[in-house]
Amino acid sequence: MAYIHLTEGLPGIRALFDFRPETAKPLCALADVLLHQSNSLSRADRELIATYVSSLNDCYYCQTAHGAIAAHHLNGNENLVVQVKRDFTAAPISDKLKALLAIARKVQTSGKQVTTEDVETARRQGASDVEIHDTVLIAAAFCMYNRYVDGLGTWAPEALESYKPRAAVVAEGGYNRIPSDVRAHAQSSTGSTSHTR
Amino acid sequence: MAYIHLTEGLPGIRALFDFRPETAKPLCALADVLLHQSNSLSRADRELIATYVSSLNDCYYCQTAHGAIAAHHLNGNENLVVQVKRDFTAAPISDKLKALLAIARKVQTSGKQVTTEDVETARRQGASDVEIHDTVLIAAAFCMYNRYVDGLGTWAPEALESYKPRAAVVAEGGYNRIPSDVRAHAQSSTGSTSHTR
Repeated sequence: MAYIHLTEGLPGIRALFDFRPETAKPLCALADVLLHQSNSLSRADRELIATYVSSLNDCYYCQTAHGAIAAHHLNGNENLVVQVKRDFTAAPISDKLKALLAIARKVQTSGKQVTTEDVETARRQGASDVEIHDTVLIAAAFCMYNRYVDGLGTWAPEALESYKPRAAVVAEGGYNRIPSDVRAHAQSSTGSTSHTR
Repeated sequence: MAYIHLTEGLPGIRALFDFRPETAKPLCALADVLLHQSNSLSRADRELIATYVSSLNDCYYCQTAHGAIAAHHLNGNENLVVQVKRDFTAAPISDKLKALLAIARKVQTSGKQVTTEDVETARRQGASDVEIHDTVLIAAAFCMYNRYVDGLGTWAPEALESYKPRAAVVAEGGYNRIPSDVRAHAQSSTGSTSHTR
């Protein structure tokens, strides 16, 4: 049961986007730049960073939703997502992504944990300034999204299968269309947009 | 010394806004909705929540910059900002703001720390659903901004005085104009916008 009055049937952050469209817009715009728009890091790599940080923060909704999006980009390789969450150092991913995940892990604890050595290691594996910047900001952003979703006690479906249809839509279409999608869904499923504020 | 190549002379998150304008825009738009746009919580109260969370995360730049903005909204009462950071339960602020700061403190650790009782306490002091939502999101957002600023090793001026002119501009004009302000400042002070990426 969420701590505030949300439209029933909308899971996780989607219920919060419906509740407060004014904040939904920049939150989705940020996710779109970081995870979907053109970048030298693949969408799969960026979703894996988001999923890994969400698992460190123990946010079930975010790690499952973004894990499903990562798996979509990986042609359905759900096993790789599980391996990265369990122990990325032993996963079959590039040394560059391992170095970036090591930075993300530090950021999840505190920005102050990141050292010159962490950054130099990533750079030796070919990471650019923008890639290092975006890794830090993806990790930091999911420390926000995770706290937002759990701090308001939102509801999350348990079954991974239920996340897949939406994951395919977001993986292909990006994050910017989410606020209007959520509004349309909330209106059609409840017949009402009223909230107790 | 920052971990990536940033324009010299720009402090904290301003150097990062200059480095990556694509992410600066949604980051500033989010801050503007949460801290500046019309709300039943005063701008001073919202900046105090941001400042308090930044102090818990030990982010010198953010707690000083937003503390200066809070003080501006409080007619220069810097002492109140110090009191809230030191022990908000003993500060001369409303019981509603104390209840919201208690929620923000939980969110800083983890969203999962927030309880029904925390929210009911805030509600008994008159907090609305939107105020509870915005408190959680402000606290979560500063867990992002703080990690972003410190995780990339940005530079922060030490003297509080140096934060005041900019604090007055942001307190009056909001956050949405920051990306273009930063670009103009970076170009005029360095004569160059080139970056090693």
